[in-house]
Amino acid sequence: MHALAEKVIAGDVRAAARACRLADDRVGEYLTILKDLFPHTGRAWTVGITGNPGAGKSTLTDRLIGHYRKQGKRVAVVAIDPTSPYTGGAILGDRIRMQDHALDPGVFIRSLATRGALGGLTRSAADIVRILDAWGADVILIETVGVGQDEIEITRMAHTTLVVAAPGMGDEVQAIKAGILECADVFAVNKADREGADGAVRDLELMIALGGDVTRAGGHSRGHSAGVLDLEKQQITHGTALWLPKIARTVSTRGQGIAELAVMLEAHWAWLTGTPEGAARRRLRLREAMDAHLRDALSQAALGALAGEIERAVDAVDRREIDPYSAAEQLVAAFRSR
Amino acid sequence: MHALAEKVIAGDVRAAARACRLADDRVGEYLTILKDLFPHTGRAWTVGITGNPGAGKSTLTDRLIGHYRKQGKRVAVVAIDPTSPYTGGAILGDRIRMQDHALDPGVFIRSLATRGALGGLTRSAADIVRILDAWGADVILIETVGVGQDEIEITRMAHTTLVVAAPGMGDEVQAIKAGILECADVFAVNKADREGADGAVRDLELMIALGGDVTRAGGHSRGHSAGVLDLEKQQITHGTALWLPKIARTVSTRGQGIAELAVMLEAHWAWLTGTPEGAARRRLRLREAMDAHLRDALSQAALGALAGEIERAVDAVDRREIDPYSAAEQLVAAFRSR
Repeated sequence: MHALAEKVIAGDVRAAARACRLADDRVGEYLTILKDLFPHTGRAWTVGITGNPGAGKSTLTDRLIGHYRKQGKRVAVVAIDPTSPYTGGAILGDRIRMQDHALDPGVFIRSLATRGALGGLTRSAADIVRILDAWGADVILIETVGVGQDEIEITRMAHTTLVVAAPGMGDEVQAIKAGILECADVFAVNKADREGADGAVRDLELMIALGGDVTRAGGHSRGHSAGVLDLEKQQITHGTALWLPKIARTVSTRGQGIAELAVMLEAHWAWLTGTPEGAARRRLRLREAMDAHLRDALSQAALGALAGEIERAVDAVDRREIDPYSAAEQLVAAFRSR
Repeated sequence: MHALAEKVIAGDVRAAARACRLADDRVGEYLTILKDLFPHTGRAWTVGITGNPGAGKSTLTDRLIGHYRKQGKRVAVVAIDPTSPYTGGAILGDRIRMQDHALDPGVFIRSLATRGALGGLTRSAADIVRILDAWGADVILIETVGVGQDEIEITRMAHTTLVVAAPGMGDEVQAIKAGILECADVFAVNKADREGADGAVRDLELMIALGGDVTRAGGHSRGHSAGVLDLEKQQITHGTALWLPKIARTVSTRGQGIAELAVMLEAHWAWLTGTPEGAARRRLRLREAMDAHLRDALSQAALGALAGEIERAVDAVDRREIDPYSAAEQLVAAFRSR
């Protein structure tokens, strides 16, 4: 076994940090290390935390760290900001709160910015989650900055997805995007001491009752008219072992509602690990992860094997001698015949 | 040639709309149609328009439509909202302004939301741009809603990228993300009659002088300290035929500065088509597009050919009998040996 992998498994924080860096940059023997670590993964519970900027995700994450630390659990945080692809590093520099936990050896915090490659961030995040799992994290919190497509992809990777909302954030910001809604296992209506919290909870309850179809629930801010109920979707949420999203009210700045939120999150984990429906969902996510790995391996192998052919294909496409769809098919055939 | 492709080439708006729908859903004979259309593409100029919500992108796009229509050009608009992957359609319902052009046969407007698949939106957008190009659009405006990673990908697809900024939008919103900055060919400081416009222009000028390195220019809102100059980047921007981003001041609600902005955009197009450096950049973008096509074709072919093997690999990974990295390598080998 690779020496660094051994240290990670032994719970060495600095080794874990180093392995994360290698995996993120895809340099050195990162692949050997990831392979060595894999048999030691599968123990950690991953919780994705997403929601619009300003909803209080960071403070809530912080409270959850504290909650799990009090239970003696090892906590890892992967903080993701895909909006700054070119800074080449984490930009969550304003997270002074992280310093609360900076000296706690039971907390590992890793920030992650995208490398600019399509899917690169999700892949890096998946690798880093595995490293932290092997390192011995009991809980891995994956916190995203925004609610874009990348964030949705990454949130799908987590076992349990927490969507943080806050009342009264104005039209542009308040609207919880449909994509995020469909991923949510638990909602936290944060800043629940503010006006509008009851309304936010009611809106979410309605949307859950309607099967998460936000456009039909009229919860969408962009002028969709509230339409008829989606009966098909509605059917699946009642009287079965399917998971019905839970709603917690929190005031993260004062630590209110955190224990209740934690109970809901754990209930989802129990569902995922204790019911056939949960197992089916876990399996689906594993399949998605495998597909992503396969796509990645295919593209790396093909781009390497076909470098010259690809350049020639580009020239031919540029001269309109061939269309790019047929050119791609020919390249796939060439790749398979080597 | 496919009958629908023939109609598109003849300039039929409804045929173009239908082809866009097929390509977006990837159903029917969409691939045949795209292949048939390809030899008739390559004439249109594509302009990506991005920037933070609230900067006035929609109004500015509208003004540009009007500008190009006055010149007798055929204009197409592809409006992209990747934040709503599950609504399955366009959500730009608040675009009443689109009605100004709705009855103009020289304007084609197509909204596009993501299908949820990684890279799916970029791929769909690329296909739709080709259809509109073959349809006879002189100018294709690709307008994004936000400034996330997807938007950057899509903006990279355009020949010319316009980044719209506005002064005084508060800390969260005002910060132009590093990734977007690096893509910008032209900036529009919109709402230029507002206080803070001069400062915004100066900030952008400084960032351009520093080679677009926003973190070093101190323009980043997340607490980065302004550091030393990036000399390497600075060198490339002066005294060469490389493109130095231009800055226009506009008040889109009153139509001010639009002609000046259009001149800058066209200057970029002239650079792209008239200089060796521009040609090199065009070639790079063609290569990126080809790589994306290849990845897409590979993954479609492999997922089809290996369905059973992938399921077995997932089971083995789930039982920790093999790691997913090695499993992916084995799947690639199996794919190549068929």
